[in-house]
Amino acid sequence: MYKSVCEYLNLLLHINLKIRRNMKTYDVIIIGSGPAGIITGVTAKKRNPDKSILLLGESQKGLVPCGIPYVFHRLDSVEKDKMGPKPFMDAGGDFQADKAVDIDPEKKIVTLDSGQAYEYGKLVFATGSTPVVPKFIKGYDMEGVEYIKKNYDYIEGLVEKAKKAKNIVVIGGGFIGAEVAEQLQLNGSHNVSLVEMEKYCFCNAFSTELADMATEELKKTGVNVMTSTKVTEITGENGKVSAVKVDSGKEIQADMVIAAIGYRPNTELAKKSGLQLNKIGAIIADQYGRTSVNDICAAGDCAGTTGFLTGKEDTIMLASTATAEARVCGYNLFGICLKRHFSGTLGVFSTEINGMVMAAAGVNAKTAWEANVNYASAVFSDVDRHPGAFSDCSPLSVRLYVSLSDGSIIGGEVWGGKSAGEIINTISMSIQKNVTVYELVEFQFGTHPLLTTAPTKYVLVKAAEAVINKIR
Amino acid sequence: MYKSVCEYLNLLLHINLKIRRNMKTYDVIIIGSGPAGIITGVTAKKRNPDKSILLLGESQKGLVPCGIPYVFHRLDSVEKDKMGPKPFMDAGGDFQADKAVDIDPEKKIVTLDSGQAYEYGKLVFATGSTPVVPKFIKGYDMEGVEYIKKNYDYIEGLVEKAKKAKNIVVIGGGFIGAEVAEQLQLNGSHNVSLVEMEKYCFCNAFSTELADMATEELKKTGVNVMTSTKVTEITGENGKVSAVKVDSGKEIQADMVIAAIGYRPNTELAKKSGLQLNKIGAIIADQYGRTSVNDICAAGDCAGTTGFLTGKEDTIMLASTATAEARVCGYNLFGICLKRHFSGTLGVFSTEINGMVMAAAGVNAKTAWEANVNYASAVFSDVDRHPGAFSDCSPLSVRLYVSLSDGSIIGGEVWGGKSAGEIINTISMSIQKNVTVYELVEFQFGTHPLLTTAPTKYVLVKAAEAVINKIR
Repeated sequence: MYKSVCEYLNLLLHINLKIRRNMKTYDVIIIGSGPAGIITGVTAKKRNPDKSILLLGESQKGLVPCGIPYVFHRLDSVEKDKMGPKPFMDAGGDFQADKAVDIDPEKKIVTLDSGQAYEYGKLVFATGSTPVVPKFIKGYDMEGVEYIKKNYDYIEGLVEKAKKAKNIVVIGGGFIGAEVAEQLQLNGSHNVSLVEMEKYCFCNAFSTELADMATEELKKTGVNVMTSTKVTEITGENGKVSAVKVDSGKEIQADMVIAAIGYRPNTELAKKSGLQLNKIGAIIADQYGRTSVNDICAAGDCAGTTGFLTGKEDTIMLASTATAEARVCGYNLFGICLKRHFSGTLGVFSTEINGMVMAAAGVNAKTAWEANVNYASAVFSDVDRHPGAFSDCSPLSVRLYVSLSDGSIIGGEVWGGKSAGEIINTISMSIQKNVTVYELVEFQFGTHPLLTTAPTKYVLVKAAEAVINKIR
Repeated sequence: MYKSVCEYLNLLLHINLKIRRNMKTYDVIIIGSGPAGIITGVTAKKRNPDKSILLLGESQKGLVPCGIPYVFHRLDSVEKDKMGPKPFMDAGGDFQADKAVDIDPEKKIVTLDSGQAYEYGKLVFATGSTPVVPKFIKGYDMEGVEYIKKNYDYIEGLVEKAKKAKNIVVIGGGFIGAEVAEQLQLNGSHNVSLVEMEKYCFCNAFSTELADMATEELKKTGVNVMTSTKVTEITGENGKVSAVKVDSGKEIQADMVIAAIGYRPNTELAKKSGLQLNKIGAIIADQYGRTSVNDICAAGDCAGTTGFLTGKEDTIMLASTATAEARVCGYNLFGICLKRHFSGTLGVFSTEINGMVMAAAGVNAKTAWEANVNYASAVFSDVDRHPGAFSDCSPLSVRLYVSLSDGSIIGGEVWGGKSAGEIINTISMSIQKNVTVYELVEFQFGTHPLLTTAPTKYVLVKAAEAVINKIR
């Protein structure tokens, strides 16, 4: 009886407080409406239809992040790359175009830019990432220095500006830089240069061998690719960019400079709210996305990742990784209903440059060396049809990286025709399930003349055989 | 000392016997030079370079078996579909164009059609399969009734004959029948009809749902597809075919009839040699290809298979299955150096009809029901690019079949664009590694706008989610 009275009084007090604050409570509030935010929301809402979930985002008009390079040519439209919170709203979630500016983790209150405030049961950071600004380059702040921001209106403006630019210099040869350079070049209206300080483009994701190939393909599109080159200064007149100076002393004409030197996690608010960040400034989160603060989770680019093999902090920022984290986070917000089976982040990358597909999963020679892993590696090359006489036949190669300690597949690269984009997923599955090279060699796969390599030399199996021959 | 003398005398006797017989000994003799024979040979030779290996085949000119339908149109040439024992000979093996006609398993001697004989250490049957002759149909033996034999000269002749045929009737709507009908129709010179007694084509490999779709695609190419229809008689004049009568009473004009009602294992010699055969006449072989007779193995279409889920005899005859068996057999001829990890045959099928790809692995609704397996199943459909605005975008759907006992993936179907041909292999790997639907939903996959579904709705993961929602 006494307890009930207490509870009743407590409830009254609670109601009173809420009325006073005029504050609504959501079971879940998600900050950020990119892929991680939307997928956390959709997953959590479908799993818990009775929970109230609010998604906060800048605008209902978002972008498919990995599709941005293609708005400059292949899609030829920003509208066609649109992605928004509709799937989440269709699932019954609430969306609000507003920005979280303050969090009280004790009282569990989020305050928005508009002044409005909500109480939350669980809070999810899905605040994404922002292009790194090259403050170390003189002239970085001139008019005409642009970024690939994941923002609809900004990109729409950028497309218009690019139309007026004859000479464009892209700084940075990662996926975004290289793909944007390729697409701008292929649209035929610009002279595009790309400056990369490493020996090859894509060298963060690909082995030296594959990065070399990818760089050569990029050159074939007509992009003036300058590797092993550093930008020393962006120069211009009246505050407007006119050229880029590089360390060889050479000057490249530029009406527009696109800085694509990486992204940094958006974690100012997280830091302010007392969440622990890792060395690169990402939110430290466990395998279920739980942060250092009770009832606050993080998923996607703003959350730190841990390499599956090294167990060390990683800097992988991919929409595929973000959505995988978001699914795990969304499922497990109210208790572990989806036990995590594979710990750590794998990193599965793919791209197409000049019609050549290149993909990678797990470690490569360079990252295996850095992690001090003993491995064997071998490549097998054939074509993606059988017989090879079909007119739409493309080359196809697979390289596997195999742990010498237990024979398990720890990495792979695939390049050639379009099917490489899915073959890398069979490799990724193999890594996640600890498939050994001995199991892979007896893999029961499917083949068809119009779709795959021949059954006599199915690329994954032959690459596995080649590794076994090296191990013996 | 005594032992050495004995051994010496024994050796002398052995040499003497051989000289008397004028008989060469091979460590391994393989009968049959299709995919299973070639792969067994290549694998065994590479693994044991010091062993002498002889491959016996009808001719050095073989065919890529699954490529045969395409010689009628897409390849437009039999030469382009050629496949021979060259890879085996390059690896150091001997090839002889001859036929084994007698085996003495006691003395371990193979006698050839030419009268020559060899002693063997290990003998491998890779004798393949032959089209079933529809002896139950009156008129089956008339001129103009043809088959899809895996024989270069025969197929070359058939292509020439087909050129003169206006009306062609294909009997049987399995992969070979349907693909041959499609290609003959697409080459534009024939009226092609296909008669299938089941309700849909492809019903041995696909679920009813997918078989229905595949049949509709085949109809769209212009083939006159008659399902739920039986051929009652092949009629003609002067022993030459002129029409096909079906059970509705209808008569279809025919200058050529292609009987594609299945293949039967070539096991006359095996039976004569005392090897145990299963109910469908295939050689009973264990998971390493070992038959009921010492030192005799079997791989490929002539060897029986056991369903991975049912543990029962299966009738799968695929080049991919054959080569997987051949690899296991070739590796393990002289002791188990490649431990078999996955027991039973999975069956991974794929085809493309009218530009639509359809693929299946493991069980489907029908085979799960037959095997009395409790399962849940769900489908997810999207497109194979992201955003979907790319001009080369195709629909893409995945259906998963999941065991209710442990949540493991036991089957899958994929249909739509070309990438389905490799996505089915990620499903196949999942089945072979007992991946559960809960693991699949947190699968770390790779995506790219030009290559795959969006990361927010990667088809395998979304199909897994759909199954989980059904199970709950």
